[in-house]
Amino acid sequence: MASATLPSASQVLDLIAPLPLDGGQRLADVQVAFETYGSLSASKSNAILIFHALTGDQCVASPHPVTGKPGWWLRMVGPGRPIDTDRFFVICANVLGGCYGSTGPASLAPDGQPYAMRFPVITIRDMVRAQISVLDAMGIDQLHAVVGGSMGGMQALSFAANWPERTRAALIVASTARHSAQNIAFHEVGRQAIMADPKWQGGDYYAAGKGPDAGLAVARMAAHITYLSEEGMHEKFGRKLQDRSAKTFGFDADFQVESYLRHQGLSFTDRFDANSYLYITRAMDYFDLAEEQGGKLAEAFAGATARFCLISFDTDWLYPTAESRTIAHALNAAGAPVSFVELSAPFGHDSFLLDVPALDRVIAGFLGQ
Amino acid sequence: MASATLPSASQVLDLIAPLPLDGGQRLADVQVAFETYGSLSASKSNAILIFHALTGDQCVASPHPVTGKPGWWLRMVGPGRPIDTDRFFVICANVLGGCYGSTGPASLAPDGQPYAMRFPVITIRDMVRAQISVLDAMGIDQLHAVVGGSMGGMQALSFAANWPERTRAALIVASTARHSAQNIAFHEVGRQAIMADPKWQGGDYYAAGKGPDAGLAVARMAAHITYLSEEGMHEKFGRKLQDRSAKTFGFDADFQVESYLRHQGLSFTDRFDANSYLYITRAMDYFDLAEEQGGKLAEAFAGATARFCLISFDTDWLYPTAESRTIAHALNAAGAPVSFVELSAPFGHDSFLLDVPALDRVIAGFLGQ
Repeated sequence: MASATLPSASQVLDLIAPLPLDGGQRLADVQVAFETYGSLSASKSNAILIFHALTGDQCVASPHPVTGKPGWWLRMVGPGRPIDTDRFFVICANVLGGCYGSTGPASLAPDGQPYAMRFPVITIRDMVRAQISVLDAMGIDQLHAVVGGSMGGMQALSFAANWPERTRAALIVASTARHSAQNIAFHEVGRQAIMADPKWQGGDYYAAGKGPDAGLAVARMAAHITYLSEEGMHEKFGRKLQDRSAKTFGFDADFQVESYLRHQGLSFTDRFDANSYLYITRAMDYFDLAEEQGGKLAEAFAGATARFCLISFDTDWLYPTAESRTIAHALNAAGAPVSFVELSAPFGHDSFLLDVPALDRVIAGFLGQ
Repeated sequence: MASATLPSASQVLDLIAPLPLDGGQRLADVQVAFETYGSLSASKSNAILIFHALTGDQCVASPHPVTGKPGWWLRMVGPGRPIDTDRFFVICANVLGGCYGSTGPASLAPDGQPYAMRFPVITIRDMVRAQISVLDAMGIDQLHAVVGGSMGGMQALSFAANWPERTRAALIVASTARHSAQNIAFHEVGRQAIMADPKWQGGDYYAAGKGPDAGLAVARMAAHITYLSEEGMHEKFGRKLQDRSAKTFGFDADFQVESYLRHQGLSFTDRFDANSYLYITRAMDYFDLAEEQGGKLAEAFAGATARFCLISFDTDWLYPTAESRTIAHALNAAGAPVSFVELSAPFGHDSFLLDVPALDRVIAGFLGQ
């Protein structure tokens, strides 16, 4: 995808003031695209802000504008669902740097040309800062909760640490307080794959109407492996062959897992902008909540008044349980109320998006309090 | 590297008969490049055949012809070393499909042009078959031992299963009897990265003198992550910055781990042929010793008379200890004598190449019997 798409159910907020960024710049004319579900109460006290993951978007419970697939957390968000829209007013915004209506590298800069690589490098806190503006515009002083999985969990942590008075609860699923060397390494492989594609053209591919699809597909394939568990992959694919009874002694996708990965890579290029992938992975790699606060994670939560809930999955090797435990210890040290549970699920990191009934129960229970 | 290099200490054997391949073809005019260390005894009973890994070569204890670095197992092979060349005659051959003197995709086909992608897809057993020819030429009926780590271990297993009378012992380090779905997935990412590079040109890049370096570098980066442990990466790099005191808010290699990976990727392209990488990874993905023998791994060892030693490392997530345990169980079921040890080492899969004194002791002890 070489340009941005605005989903039909989304609204767009134009920020009046330039957005201050952690990198020191002030970004003018920022737009934030978002969706809402349910009704805001008269006291404006029933709002839940959901943060999406790296390749997610604001279509949490509405069809995707490119793929037509159901919203990515439709099983979690809706009337009578764990995040109950009969009771809560749910907001989800496309992140700054994204490609679904919020300002990102595909957006036009003041000179009328796409920013491309002139877009400033942003941080997870910058993403949150843009979404605070949405709350301000709606007159929501304090949320019922912030909720996020994976990169969404990083935003929820950043929100609770930096704007502690703006939420009464924070729910963080399959996430981490800092990107590890291995996490950075996998992202760097993806970025190098994109930048090595001649069609990337230093980021200036928008006019050509065709981006570095081959490089972006490789990036997605490498990342996708980290989202699945080895056991889950083995159960799903093993060494099963794809539509053939014997190996072909060639370089076609003989194995189902090859065919699956190629499909994941190619289909991703239809729905995501390569430069957005560069900027968002960079923001994740820069994320280190302790570093932001002088090196001690507990300090990050010194002013926190929210209730916290941390959920990890036993087969998640991208952000393993130890990462959530570190956060729980820091919250304990800061005296914040925290519950922490490791759930058993076979799907690896992607478990937070999939059918894990125990996850539904924990989320419904925590948000229902 | 867009052509093959013959190391100065290597010899080359021209196979007289065409080599039969598992894919059904017969490959004519095969050459096998190899090195030897120590002296063959009059009874020709003191030979050890070492098999190299995916990106290894026959320069087990001699300087590398491109990088000038010491042989990849110099710490293990030499006078008085665990594989003692005062006592043993050590042979190591470049694998079929390789790029250091053995016939591979960079070699000239009968029509005088490089095979490139016309080279047949080969298997681990085909690699071993080519090396059996070297033993035949030397008049070595039975080896003291076959030894290999990683892909070298696959060859050692294949040797012991298919030519059981040709060795008295088999030492397999950090290896597996079949490539898992996750193993295949990582290799497929690498192959797609190479094939997506326009300089690959369907494999016909030899005349241009310049191969798909960008794609090959990305492939190496992705693979390299799997060779290290998360803990080892964290200890070595953590989130330390590279030659700077603060993040640059750009896409340079801010983090040491990024800089390290980029270097690994780029330097690899100087010493390896991209098409060889495609063929050798394919051979590894095809490897499933049980499948070759009708689906039961124990059957593979039904005729085995050798002593076996299996070594795994606790931080190896590419071929974890469970893979070695599966082999040990199959050997037990086949009634073959086997010792199996999991060693503790912080380096992940690469532990078999690095300073692990316990590994030296186990290898010296097993081979000394």
